[in-house]
Amino acid sequence: MDCAVYLDGVREETDRDPETLDDTLADLTGQDFLWIGVSDPTHEEMERLGGALGLHPLAIEDTLAPHQRPRVDRFSDHLFLSLRIVSYSDDDITTSEVNICLGRHYVLTVRHGGPHLSMARHRAEMVPDRLKQGPIAAVHALVDTIVDRYEDVAAELVTDVEEVESSVFSADRTRDSARIYRLKRETLEFRHAVAPLRDPILRFAQVAEPEDLRPYFRDIGDHLQRALDAIDSIDSLLSNALNAHLAQLSVQQNEDMRKLTAGATLFAIPTAVAGIYGMNFEHMPELTWTYGYPACLAAMGGACLYVYWRFKKSGWL
Amino acid sequence: MDCAVYLDGVREETDRDPETLDDTLADLTGQDFLWIGVSDPTHEEMERLGGALGLHPLAIEDTLAPHQRPRVDRFSDHLFLSLRIVSYSDDDITTSEVNICLGRHYVLTVRHGGPHLSMARHRAEMVPDRLKQGPIAAVHALVDTIVDRYEDVAAELVTDVEEVESSVFSADRTRDSARIYRLKRETLEFRHAVAPLRDPILRFAQVAEPEDLRPYFRDIGDHLQRALDAIDSIDSLLSNALNAHLAQLSVQQNEDMRKLTAGATLFAIPTAVAGIYGMNFEHMPELTWTYGYPACLAAMGGACLYVYWRFKKSGWL
Amino acid sequence: MDCAVYLDGVREETDRDPETLDDTLADLTGQDFLWIGVSDPTHEEMERLGGALGLHPLAIEDTLAPHQRPRVDRFSDHLFLSLRIVSYSDDDITTSEVNICLGRHYVLTVRHGGPHLSMARHRAEMVPDRLKQGPIAAVHALVDTIVDRYEDVAAELVTDVEEVESSVFSADRTRDSARIYRLKRETLEFRHAVAPLRDPILRFAQVAEPEDLRPYFRDIGDHLQRALDAIDSIDSLLSNALNAHLAQLSVQQNEDMRKLTAGATLFAIPTAVAGIYGMNFEHMPELTWTYGYPACLAAMGGACLYVYWRFKKSGWL
Amino acid sequence: MDCAVYLDGVREETDRDPETLDDTLADLTGQDFLWIGVSDPTHEEMERLGGALGLHPLAIEDTLAPHQRPRVDRFSDHLFLSLRIVSYSDDDITTSEVNICLGRHYVLTVRHGGPHLSMARHRAEMVPDRLKQGPIAAVHALVDTIVDRYEDVAAELVTDVEEVESSVFSADRTRDSARIYRLKRETLEFRHAVAPLRDPILRFAQVAEPEDLRPYFRDIGDHLQRALDAIDSIDSLLSNALNAHLAQLSVQQNEDMRKLTAGATLFAIPTAVAGIYGMNFEHMPELTWTYGYPACLAAMGGACLYVYWRFKKSGWL
Amino acid sequence: MDCAVYLDGVREETDRDPETLDDTLADLTGQDFLWIGVSDPTHEEMERLGGALGLHPLAIEDTLAPHQRPRVDRFSDHLFLSLRIVSYSDDDITTSEVNICLGRHYVLTVRHGGPHLSMARHRAEMVPDRLKQGPIAAVHALVDTIVDRYEDVAAELVTDVEEVESSVFSADRTRDSARIYRLKRETLEFRHAVAPLRDPILRFAQVAEPEDLRPYFRDIGDHLQRALDAIDSIDSLLSNALNAHLAQLSVQQNEDMRKLTAGATLFAIPTAVAGIYGMNFEHMPELTWTYGYPACLAAMGGACLYVYWRFKKSGWL
Ligand SMILES: [Mg+2]
Ligand SMILES: [Mg+2]
Ligand SMILES: [Mg+2]
Ligand SMILES: [Mg+2]
Ligand SMILES: [Mg+2]
Ligand SMILES: [Mg+2]
Ligand SMILES: [Mg+2]
Ligand SMILES: [Mg+2]
Ligand SMILES: [Mg+2]
Ligand SMILES: [Mg+2]
Ligand SMILES: [Mg+2]
Ligand SMILES: [Mg+2]
Ligand SMILES: [Mg+2]
Ligand SMILES: [Mg+2]
Ligand SMILES: [Mg+2]
Ligand SMILES: [Mg+2]
Ligand SMILES: [Mg+2]
Ligand SMILES: [Mg+2]
Ligand SMILES: [Mg+2]
Ligand SMILES: [Mg+2]
Ligand SMILES: [Mg+2]
Ligand SMILES: [Mg+2]
Ligand SMILES: [Mg+2]
Ligand SMILES: [Mg+2]
Ligand SMILES: [Mg+2]
Ligand SMILES: [Mg+2]
Ligand SMILES: [Mg+2]
Ligand SMILES: [Mg+2]
Ligand SMILES: [Mg+2]
Ligand SMILES: [Mg+2]
Ligand SMILES: [Mg+2]
Repeated sequence: MDCAVYLDGVREETDRDPETLDDTLADLTGQDFLWIGVSDPTHEEMERLGGALGLHPLAIEDTLAPHQRPRVDRFSDHLFLSLRIVSYSDDDITTSEVNICLGRHYVLTVRHGGPHLSMARHRAEMVPDRLKQGPIAAVHALVDTIVDRYEDVAAELVTDVEEVESSVFSADRTRDSARIYRLKRETLEFRHAVAPLRDPILRFAQVAEPEDLRPYFRDIGDHLQRALDAIDSIDSLLSNALNAHLAQLSVQQNEDMRKLTAGATLFAIPTAVAGIYGMNFEHMPELTWTYGYPACLAAMGGACLYVYWRFKKSGWL
Repeated sequence: MDCAVYLDGVREETDRDPETLDDTLADLTGQDFLWIGVSDPTHEEMERLGGALGLHPLAIEDTLAPHQRPRVDRFSDHLFLSLRIVSYSDDDITTSEVNICLGRHYVLTVRHGGPHLSMARHRAEMVPDRLKQGPIAAVHALVDTIVDRYEDVAAELVTDVEEVESSVFSADRTRDSARIYRLKRETLEFRHAVAPLRDPILRFAQVAEPEDLRPYFRDIGDHLQRALDAIDSIDSLLSNALNAHLAQLSVQQNEDMRKLTAGATLFAIPTAVAGIYGMNFEHMPELTWTYGYPACLAAMGGACLYVYWRFKKSGWL
Repeated sequence: MDCAVYLDGVREETDRDPETLDDTLADLTGQDFLWIGVSDPTHEEMERLGGALGLHPLAIEDTLAPHQRPRVDRFSDHLFLSLRIVSYSDDDITTSEVNICLGRHYVLTVRHGGPHLSMARHRAEMVPDRLKQGPIAAVHALVDTIVDRYEDVAAELVTDVEEVESSVFSADRTRDSARIYRLKRETLEFRHAVAPLRDPILRFAQVAEPEDLRPYFRDIGDHLQRALDAIDSIDSLLSNALNAHLAQLSVQQNEDMRKLTAGATLFAIPTAVAGIYGMNFEHMPELTWTYGYPACLAAMGGACLYVYWRFKKSGWL
Repeated sequence: MDCAVYLDGVREETDRDPETLDDTLADLTGQDFLWIGVSDPTHEEMERLGGALGLHPLAIEDTLAPHQRPRVDRFSDHLFLSLRIVSYSDDDITTSEVNICLGRHYVLTVRHGGPHLSMARHRAEMVPDRLKQGPIAAVHALVDTIVDRYEDVAAELVTDVEEVESSVFSADRTRDSARIYRLKRETLEFRHAVAPLRDPILRFAQVAEPEDLRPYFRDIGDHLQRALDAIDSIDSLLSNALNAHLAQLSVQQNEDMRKLTAGATLFAIPTAVAGIYGMNFEHMPELTWTYGYPACLAAMGGACLYVYWRFKKSGWL
Repeated sequence: MDCAVYLDGVREETDRDPETLDDTLADLTGQDFLWIGVSDPTHEEMERLGGALGLHPLAIEDTLAPHQRPRVDRFSDHLFLSLRIVSYSDDDITTSEVNICLGRHYVLTVRHGGPHLSMARHRAEMVPDRLKQGPIAAVHALVDTIVDRYEDVAAELVTDVEEVESSVFSADRTRDSARIYRLKRETLEFRHAVAPLRDPILRFAQVAEPEDLRPYFRDIGDHLQRALDAIDSIDSLLSNALNAHLAQLSVQQNEDMRKLTAGATLFAIPTAVAGIYGMNFEHMPELTWTYGYPACLAAMGGACLYVYWRFKKSGWL
């Protein structure tokens, strides 16, 4: 548990005992606030914390239960936000969950797995002027840090989509459908982490207090929209790539079939001719000619060359 | 018929005779209420019950007719809710119907097949404080229990989708289209049970009385949305899987065709050569050579080996 | 022309002469009304009827012109409704048109082909209490009868979709695309008959007078929605079935191609071997062996059996 | 330039000199109006006309520039409408443009190519009662005539779609994809001419003055909607037809491949048997039998017949 | 940096030193304004400029950061617009970014790469009457110039789509999927540059001051809509073209397979017959006939011709 009070925007260490939290809270005035960070709390820890902060039972339940849908929920005197931290490597989107409770004088972040949020805290502490505006400034720092990551991840996904494109349209026979499927699936996972957040954030940006912070939340809404645009693009590029891959496979099969046809014909000619001169008729004048054999071989070779040239010319070989 | 009065949130047995129901009802005050559970009632039973409770004729008709669309309908002094209980096993979604009538002092549940609702009742009875808030608390308990099940079913479906994925991308030749079709079909059935409920529940959450219960109905709306998100994912994964399956089939066919081509060529070479030395020309000098035969066999074998090596190298075999 | 007055909900025969209609109308008070049913009227008949009832010129035009879009249109003192009666047999949806004009003291139904509407009239006359509420009760009876049929038709369509499914996934080679196409096409026709009606009916349900009838029109709206849900399901099942059919065709082709490959190989072996022993080299020691011939046959047979076993084992045959 | 004044709904010729137009206009009172029809005007002509009528510079620019999006645009004291006249022949939708400016006392139509609008003018002049309502009645006549044509064109398109269907499902091998593509493309062009008009017309129908004309514009909106419904149907039928065509192609290929397999097998049998009896082993007892040759031929023939019968029975031939 | 003051719509050069900009600004009255054009500024330059103009920190950040989503953002006393300049060549859409800040007395354009904006400035300076209306007229000139380009680019894309169509439906075997994919991808990029701008521009057109300019911004909105319609068409034509290409590939493969079957059969006949007469039976009467050999050749040739004619007649060759 990382816990500190921010008096006039400046961090001061405080007693981390949940028992005394309500006393600490009661002492806070103006825009001063407590910032509490918890990671994978037990049920008891959350009950105690929630009791001290006066959280709604549903907010306590939701900070504990994983797989929340990203959203912003308003309880009588506090706000509940659920977000996903997204990371990407080896064609795999991984998400972890951060739930945030924002009250008059406190911010509580509850993390389930995933990377530490200290980066967001440091970023916020570097601009004490903004933290002076109260706990909502801390929420902004957290959400901003998480959403910025979405665009990075989208850019990494785009790189992999481009790899797939190259592979689909490369001259070699490649099996791209499994990777395309995989990337489509991860894009879907990514979308479920990002999409539900946009509208609540934009709605929140219209009512956030103090008013000075509204453009900052609107900016987050805009970045969410950009990430969503990128996700839409990626998804539709992947669908197109799969269709193009099917076309490539058909083209290759057509070519193979033409090669098979050409090859079969090339061998069928000497086989048929040889069969004819292998017949046992008594009266087959060519068989007794001195140059019958070489003439026959030449005719076979000539026919094959002619047919080969015809196939080449018409693009069958 | 399971029938009890809840006085100040605590269950008390009561007379189950529909004849005396209106007397019992007339005695109830404050947030006290009757909770009546009926299963597969006859037309007469429902007429009698509906008369006693003062239900609208359409509400009576709809509690009796199966295949209601999930919805929330408001009659002059009572509310009608229709929900689906969903269960899943062996790639098959099964739904049964529960219709609920909520009046000032009563809750009536009418079940058509499907599992017993006693679980929801027990769950509600364990929190008498909430049942003190009147019959709406009983409705919350029922809807909450039913909707929680949706997410479990979605998770089970996801497991089966993952099985299909493995099968599609496994190295063996698998016929996955029938199962994919089947799962898509059940997903559709699932969606029809879940989707129509979300908006009415969210609308109801905005007007429910007492106000304390609104966040609880909002929470149900959120869980419905999560189930719907999962259903959307499943549906689109299955579509992608079918397309990928088509691509896999094409890839396999291309490979088979190349094998056929390679195999045909390997046999065509000795056949053609043997045909040539089977010709009956009188003057074929090779035929009289002492080592003509072994040389010929060696040439055939060599040609075959060379062609085989070429096919191997270029990935045709 | 079927024409009667309903005084206090009870039918009384009346003079059917359009000339005297306005007199009859002028005599009606309270919720009494004229119910006129016409089928395939000529232009003149409609002009006379419309004049007597005071219909808007556009309403007269629209009752005459077939291919109206289902809708509810409000003119100054009367309402115009256009509906489709839908029937289904032999994979064919057939629709016929009913246009309804509802005034203060009259209901006019104009039918173009299709089944008789007397069923709706009888149904209405059996509940005189409801007909006491005026001509709108007659409209409810008509629309209700027509919309109930939609759900029956949807259920019949579902049966045929299930037949198609069985055929697609049956072991035999079936050509299902024509029937799937046909059913998709009829589903589209069905949707065009049903979909445009839902929103106007739901809007009408909010303003209908007397207020008591509103839940009844809301109920019709709900049944329209159910029919639409079924249509959506059918349409998407058929799309999925066509895709699955394509996959089945690919699987069958792959199997055929493997059979071709296996068969060609089985015959290519003895042909090549026989070719070799048909060569005319002078020095071919095997040819002079006493058991050369049977040994050769045995070798051919053995090779074929071995290859056959290999193909069987790997699933190619 | 076709120019006339309509005094109390009746046409009277007037001076066509744009110089004196403003004088003519200034004299008009009540619902009298000028109706000016221009076709492919030069820039100067439009500048002069626009100046005389007091058109907004953007309205002048838009009447001149082709490729306007169909729409209704409101300037301070006049309305600008842009519509497409649609015609269809030989699988080709052709559109031409009509721009209309509607002022207090004038209607100006500017046509770019396409058929003459005199039909609409004659239709309007035949109902002077309606033209008494002012220039908006002229606009109604124009838009009504143009929109009526949309439904005719849609019906012609449907006929061609039915031709395509027959071709796709005919027993002969037909190449339908080019025509399907072509029709889809023209349907798209058609939609772009029709779709953008519906909402502005329906909005206009709610505010048009005099109020008596509103049902007439609503009727146009309804006909636009019907044309759009038809366009949606056509588009989706064509998509389905293309998919069905792909399935038909696969079915045909499967049949061809089975024929190839059967044919190859039928010839492979005598070839292999003949190869065996063409071997040169010294000890091949069958060769010396008196009836060896006919027995061998009979065996070959019998095997072929048996195989042929097997293929026939199993549907491969 | 291109910097000038526009006094009563007429350009006058001014001091370009950012240090004195606030003095210059303080002197401006009425609709006079500063127009500053910057290209690829450094962080410091923007900080200084933004400070002088009183820009919001987020506006400064967004003018610097590339990859803004096209949009219109309102800060307390200035407006921020982000647009994309689009160009197209060799099947490649290239976009560059222009960010615009519009204040009471200034317009600032910040360009990242891409073509110079002087064309828009010259266009604006040619109509001093409009520039008299203040800095918003300069914004109109800029946006109008950029949006006009969108329609040109859409027209160029359409030309390439038509090239692809011809190629798909040409008689030769063409590989069109890569180009179709490429064009779809660029269309997507194009859409992302155009689509997000339409709604904010239409909203801005409703509130822009002075009111005289509103129709001009509405006109830009209309042109954006036209560009979007074209983009939708292109995208759907390309999808259809890819499907048609797949159908063409299937048709070609069917033809190739039939050619293979026909060719194989033509060669199989003489091969089988020759095999039969190559058998070494002692009693084969035909072999001793004087005209056995030519009769056999004639029979082979005749059979081949007959089969060839049959294949031709049935369209297999
Ligand atoms: Mg993942
Ligand atoms: Mg950010
Ligand atoms: Mg990578
Ligand atoms: Mg490749
Ligand atoms: Mg930003
Ligand atoms: Mg089921
Ligand atoms: Mg729950
Ligand atoms: Mg399972
Ligand atoms: Mg597999
Ligand atoms: Mg069902
Ligand atoms: Mg929850
Ligand atoms: Mg039909
Ligand atoms: Mg009904
Ligand atoms: Mg049937
Ligand atoms: Mg089947
Ligand atoms: Mg129809
Ligand atoms: Mg009902
Ligand atoms: Mg294929
Ligand atoms: Mg295919
Ligand atoms: Mg055209
Ligand atoms: Mg009309
Ligand atoms: Mg035609
Ligand atoms: Mg056909
Ligand atoms: Mg009409
Ligand atoms: Mg590009
Ligand atoms: Mg422009
Ligand atoms: Mg080009
Ligand atoms: Mg081509
Ligand atoms: Mg981009
Ligand atoms: Mg324009
Ligand atoms: Mg497809």
